[in-house]
Amino acid sequence: MSELAELSELAKRRGFFFASNEAYGGTAGFYTFGPEGAAVKRNLEDAWRDVYVRELGHMELEAPTVMPEAVFEASGHLETFDDMILECAECGATHRADHLVEDAVADVEDAEALEPSRVAELVADHGIDCPSCGAPLAGQPVEEFNLMFGTNIGPGSSSPGYLRPETAQGIFVEFPRLKEYARNQLPFGVAQVGRAYRNEISPRRALVRVREFTQAELEHFVDPEYDDPPIERVEDVELPLYSAEAQQGDGTAETYTVREAVEAGVVESEWVAYYLGESMAFYERIGVDMDRFRYRQHLPGELSHYAADCWDAETELGGNWIEVTGFAYRSDYDLRKHGEYSEEDFTIFRQYDEPKTVERATVDPDMSYLGPTFGDDAGDVVEALESLAARDRSAFDGEAVTVEVDGESYTLPVEKTGFAVEEQTESGEHITPHVVEPSFGVDRLVYSVLAHRYGTDEVDGEERSYLELPPEIAPTAVAVFPLMTKDGLDDRAREVAESLRDAGLEVTYDDTGNIGRRYRRQDEVGTPYCVTVDYDTLEDDTVTVRERDSTDQTRVAVAELPAAIDRLVSGATLSDL
Amino acid sequence: MSELAELSELAKRRGFFFASNEAYGGTAGFYTFGPEGAAVKRNLEDAWRDVYVRELGHMELEAPTVMPEAVFEASGHLETFDDMILECAECGATHRADHLVEDAVADVEDAEALEPSRVAELVADHGIDCPSCGAPLAGQPVEEFNLMFGTNIGPGSSSPGYLRPETAQGIFVEFPRLKEYARNQLPFGVAQVGRAYRNEISPRRALVRVREFTQAELEHFVDPEYDDPPIERVEDVELPLYSAEAQQGDGTAETYTVREAVEAGVVESEWVAYYLGESMAFYERIGVDMDRFRYRQHLPGELSHYAADCWDAETELGGNWIEVTGFAYRSDYDLRKHGEYSEEDFTIFRQYDEPKTVERATVDPDMSYLGPTFGDDAGDVVEALESLAARDRSAFDGEAVTVEVDGESYTLPVEKTGFAVEEQTESGEHITPHVVEPSFGVDRLVYSVLAHRYGTDEVDGEERSYLELPPEIAPTAVAVFPLMTKDGLDDRAREVAESLRDAGLEVTYDDTGNIGRRYRRQDEVGTPYCVTVDYDTLEDDTVTVRERDSTDQTRVAVAELPAAIDRLVSGATLSDL
Repeated sequence: MSELAELSELAKRRGFFFASNEAYGGTAGFYTFGPEGAAVKRNLEDAWRDVYVRELGHMELEAPTVMPEAVFEASGHLETFDDMILECAECGATHRADHLVEDAVADVEDAEALEPSRVAELVADHGIDCPSCGAPLAGQPVEEFNLMFGTNIGPGSSSPGYLRPETAQGIFVEFPRLKEYARNQLPFGVAQVGRAYRNEISPRRALVRVREFTQAELEHFVDPEYDDPPIERVEDVELPLYSAEAQQGDGTAETYTVREAVEAGVVESEWVAYYLGESMAFYERIGVDMDRFRYRQHLPGELSHYAADCWDAETELGGNWIEVTGFAYRSDYDLRKHGEYSEEDFTIFRQYDEPKTVERATVDPDMSYLGPTFGDDAGDVVEALESLAARDRSAFDGEAVTVEVDGESYTLPVEKTGFAVEEQTESGEHITPHVVEPSFGVDRLVYSVLAHRYGTDEVDGEERSYLELPPEIAPTAVAVFPLMTKDGLDDRAREVAESLRDAGLEVTYDDTGNIGRRYRRQDEVGTPYCVTVDYDTLEDDTVTVRERDSTDQTRVAVAELPAAIDRLVSGATLSDL
Repeated sequence: MSELAELSELAKRRGFFFASNEAYGGTAGFYTFGPEGAAVKRNLEDAWRDVYVRELGHMELEAPTVMPEAVFEASGHLETFDDMILECAECGATHRADHLVEDAVADVEDAEALEPSRVAELVADHGIDCPSCGAPLAGQPVEEFNLMFGTNIGPGSSSPGYLRPETAQGIFVEFPRLKEYARNQLPFGVAQVGRAYRNEISPRRALVRVREFTQAELEHFVDPEYDDPPIERVEDVELPLYSAEAQQGDGTAETYTVREAVEAGVVESEWVAYYLGESMAFYERIGVDMDRFRYRQHLPGELSHYAADCWDAETELGGNWIEVTGFAYRSDYDLRKHGEYSEEDFTIFRQYDEPKTVERATVDPDMSYLGPTFGDDAGDVVEALESLAARDRSAFDGEAVTVEVDGESYTLPVEKTGFAVEEQTESGEHITPHVVEPSFGVDRLVYSVLAHRYGTDEVDGEERSYLELPPEIAPTAVAVFPLMTKDGLDDRAREVAESLRDAGLEVTYDDTGNIGRRYRRQDEVGTPYCVTVDYDTLEDDTVTVRERDSTDQTRVAVAELPAAIDRLVSGATLSDL
């Protein structure tokens, strides 16, 4: 069995994750996290919050997953969030046309960037057959399919809504309010951890391509001219960078420090480089194998409709590289769009260091002249004059001035316009903030960590499988066993378990099967420490502490146990105790 | 302003919660939790997990929110999860017909329990007009509207799916797997915290009736004959019970201990009584005002399609009582239905204490006789014989036996049926577990706690508003201020803040505005403690600690501060320091 097949089997058997609704034949693209997996996922989310909310000092919010159509008209998702699909005329199966072409045509690697008609041509030219029934697909139309799940809000179909395809939009639409919480000061960041949805045509590879998933996104709003990232925090962090240039040639990932990457121009945006640097420690902390990790730059055709520059963090899984995080410089795209489509103010007021004095050309038309002269058009003429004054003050140099309104010319004496050039003092200006976005795929990270930490070895002549999870991420920090369920050993073990729980640790109590089997069970779910209560405990009040990775054991006094386990999960080793 | 109006204003201004998508005119029934509210909500969910997962030792899982139609065919939601709607012929507005009737007709309190045709009659008889435009509604049909949000899974409309109306179904459908994690032993419980959706006709009252919300549900699977709740844990807990009988007469809530409630039969199910008892401490812990709290029994017409007995925990908000938790005895309804509608086994094997020997009547028909004799009907005849033997073995006492298949009689010699009575040893039997469900509405609890903890008083001659949140629930445990942002006070204050963060506390740093204003700001978001770094700090390394509720202050050494704050948030008072 391959590593991923073994992991899937373990995940199902021990309750990490499994395909949902199997009692009803399953529903492609939906997975349920069982007790162990839900704990890993929550621990990972908490570690993320610890960095991206607490440590970096950003806000967090929780928005609804169902949003009205107007939001996605503005964001561009309604128009452009499509996949190319092709239906088999013979069996009716629907396929991702771009995937069919990529699989069948050796020199096409990014068919998503092609026009649907071109993809249809390639299907025909290469005689691609239906993967389901084998019928030829040539001649079938390739169509765009919007990946958002649609629904209706309230009775009737007059209020279409969509399940959000990214948590980000729930932050962007609330910017007018969020900037108040930030006291109208840039830069500030807003994080959200929550579900997002994409109605994938062909969900596949377990947690990699699913239809419902959890994102942990940070939208960092910055002033593009004045705000620089605190790059000194991470300047010496080494990044494995797989640039677009390297991908297009024969290159591979190369190591740069954050500072070098910025100076050499490999990473264009300093903000993106900064977040690549910040995130390295996070991946390591949650248990990603950093030898199976890289940052890959998006190829030009691959950029999302909103992104100006984008790098993906990728992990290697079963021979494939998968995206686990997108680091995008979204520029002012999102806030500008929402500003255009809504009636609200999506800008922020940038205060000048010192007030500026500027000359402004203004008009103050004599309505007692314009009214009778232009009648119903007088208002439009005033607007045209205001606009002309701002644009070209030399037009007011002569005796008369002419403006156009809907193709008609209106001429009037300059003296009736009240034209004047005045000095005004301005304390600042309104700007649309830019957005830097690290967007983490929580499910894929959980999957990567489990895959990277899964291993097998031999202990006492028996094969064991284990998950070498960091204690912070493991579902259980410590398991407590009584050697036997008699002579009071089990009561004593329950007391020990309770004392560890009271110390805030995640504890499992297990008294079934022999001790070796109980160790295997905990090794398989990644429990870093096991504590056994035995007959010596009744004599000298000590217990055995056993370490998952080395399988080494030592004895610790019961009274010191909570502190000892706490030190172990914080990084100490058995020999430090 | 009323208490709730004041709270709404505070919630919006300070970032607890606000109507979503206001930039696009708002979307009724959807709320966003801002930074402070998201923190309160998460703290409340963590407190819930601490009790219902960790302390009570249940599993937790995370299932998708989108589920296929088959699940809701089985669960009954497709058929019965409806509200009565009525559309105004004049203006097209849609209304909840039952609400209109309840508001207009004095003696109708529970119109939902009536037939739609009867509700239409009441609308006509009482001359009810459209609340939107005033046109008469008499004669308009009252229709059933399913409250689930529908969508399509994958391209096309051949795979309808729904947003789950309760998190529970994501647990029930996985029962065949979950029982394995529980090693096939009852009782065991499975918890889930997550979003659920109801496409309400008339969302209202802020977080009370919304279309997307968070549930914290526990599904406790029990053997109805052999499993008793550990009622002794809570037998002396006093419950304010508002029984169906009291509601139908002129009664009010009366206090019973859990034991009394069970013995007097006020609460029918011991399991429900047990969970009422367990939950009292939880409500108190998160900050519900227990003088504005009660348990109300469902009236007979009010029971959900799945519930055998149900009590709601209710809080009083702005003069109304709202449901914050439903405690339902769901019997075997859900697992039985899923067992019937799917091909999976939703039972559990109940082992007998000792194997039982039972007599079984069986048949083993002679097919060389039945085949030629009954032709195509032979198979049906065999089935009918098996069924008859199990039902009435005396039918085989004579020479011949007669069975009916689709109204036709078939007679054959008993000796050709292979009828025999055998002794069999059975080690157990398959039973469908019953389900006890405490189902908490997280948004409504957040709303209740904020409303119950909101207050105003006068400090130093100025009015202040404050949130008296328990430290565990407050968004921030401690705020740190420098008295001035000069002379190194701000650097010192930042160090102090950092040391508190390192101790695992939620910390806010604030250096803007005068100290009084900063205190007000923290009082309004419920921060229980504020720490001020002043000039004395530079001299003697102490800081001022100020308590939100009493506004008392004391000085604490910086070195002892993390431990001191930790003691305070755990329940100590300033005078204990």
